[in-house]
Amino acid sequence: MDGQYLPMSEAKVSVLDWGFLHSDATYDTVHVWDGRFFRLDLHLDRFFRGMEKLRMKLPYNRSDIEKILSNCIALSGHKSAYVEMICTRGGSPTFSRDPRDAENRFIAFAVPFGSVANSEQLERGLHVAISNTVRIPPKSVDSAIKNYHWLDLVKGLFEAYDSGAETALIVDINDNIAEGPGFNVFMVKNGRLKTPAYGVLAGITRQTVFDLCSELGLLVSTGDVDRGELKDADEVFITSTAGGIMSVTRIDETVVGDGTVGSVTRQLTELYWKKHVDPAWSRPIIYE
Amino acid sequence: MDGQYLPMSEAKVSVLDWGFLHSDATYDTVHVWDGRFFRLDLHLDRFFRGMEKLRMKLPYNRSDIEKILSNCIALSGHKSAYVEMICTRGGSPTFSRDPRDAENRFIAFAVPFGSVANSEQLERGLHVAISNTVRIPPKSVDSAIKNYHWLDLVKGLFEAYDSGAETALIVDINDNIAEGPGFNVFMVKNGRLKTPAYGVLAGITRQTVFDLCSELGLLVSTGDVDRGELKDADEVFITSTAGGIMSVTRIDETVVGDGTVGSVTRQLTELYWKKHVDPAWSRPIIYE
Repeated sequence: MDGQYLPMSEAKVSVLDWGFLHSDATYDTVHVWDGRFFRLDLHLDRFFRGMEKLRMKLPYNRSDIEKILSNCIALSGHKSAYVEMICTRGGSPTFSRDPRDAENRFIAFAVPFGSVANSEQLERGLHVAISNTVRIPPKSVDSAIKNYHWLDLVKGLFEAYDSGAETALIVDINDNIAEGPGFNVFMVKNGRLKTPAYGVLAGITRQTVFDLCSELGLLVSTGDVDRGELKDADEVFITSTAGGIMSVTRIDETVVGDGTVGSVTRQLTELYWKKHVDPAWSRPIIYE
Repeated sequence: MDGQYLPMSEAKVSVLDWGFLHSDATYDTVHVWDGRFFRLDLHLDRFFRGMEKLRMKLPYNRSDIEKILSNCIALSGHKSAYVEMICTRGGSPTFSRDPRDAENRFIAFAVPFGSVANSEQLERGLHVAISNTVRIPPKSVDSAIKNYHWLDLVKGLFEAYDSGAETALIVDINDNIAEGPGFNVFMVKNGRLKTPAYGVLAGITRQTVFDLCSELGLLVSTGDVDRGELKDADEVFITSTAGGIMSVTRIDETVVGDGTVGSVTRQLTELYWKKHVDPAWSRPIIYE
């Protein structure tokens, strides 16, 4: 932060920063696995696109940011981590209400790797509830900008907990499935994969599934997925930088397929983790 | 913050607080004019309702919070100020992703009074542009919860600046007028007032206009206001805790009415400021 490396307990942002007071910020999170960044280039692409759309500018280029992220990892000593880069609108020294007067700020931090699903859940598959809460539509907030507008997702999550589920999927304005708190969702039916297209974050792990499908010769498409279709799938899984590919074996009261982690999900998960040592997909971090 | 009073430059929130990382927070802002809180009770009502809806809990009751806000003002010495109270989800000490594990946090701060419109703009009326950006609908985020999801408003604001205007109005999902960055909007036609009802924040200054109308015998209603209707009004004004009642004399390329601050707007503005010394509407702060 502000050119300094600090322990996490000291990493704080001014309460007057519009990144906090207006959630006027974009961010990206890349993960490090066994000392290697996974697909960092794709995360940097999205981060820079988000900043451009929000008309934010930083005094750092891609390689500066890569270096800062590497330093965060090296200084923290984490071998497997979650590294977040953030650009906030910043604040105005004159209390101006004009966002053009603000000095945009960069923050980066590394925390230990975390997953949407714990190891037991990964083994047996997650129990997900579909909420009636509607994902903030792209006409309000461009979903191509990775953002912190999560109150819809948090509401869905509380509703899911109320119904005894472990996490949530929320819907789009047409009541089709959108996404969950920090993840995209895929279904497999008769060997073909499908994932929602409208108003969802274009997740890097989602993109990675497209790439893995192409390598494995699996057919995947994007399009509307309604509640019934999802429950009737042979397999369902979610994708997130926080955990990778994670099976869903129960949706509301419906058991998905035979209720265990499916073969397509297993095949993709295996290849996903193999790619973490592939130099085309990952890059080593230099620990001092 | 955390039971301490600090200079603003030291008032910082952890980057790991979900109030920042998920904009999982509610807040309210009350203003102090000439050493008196204005309608503090209404702001506290809304703040507590928002926390309840977000399932947040603080170890403070209403009178504790009132005391903290008074102390912020007294310590800052401001006679006219903007006082913000915030409840964030907080963070989890174990990096859990479950918001139920978080310890909710309270933050309050006082800054000098600021206005949407400067004194020149108040005198001649604001120039507002109507954006095509859609206000986040209530099916996504309950507009009764005052929140920091502002990327739609910020986008509208940038578009307004691009077109040479001074601030923005954004629309609802049916392309009717919703609200602007931090304010509601009213129109006056043939002596009757109207303000949008759907998906807008129930502003305290908006409520105050209802109360002033009732006192002055003016008719006011809530309902859909389309772009043409607004531009065809005799008078238009916006309402915000940050500035009170502020005239709009130009919308896009259209001059509103005769292009000067209208008589109903003037009458309401005058009574609005008079109420700031009325003990029924305001309460003195005890400066030590």
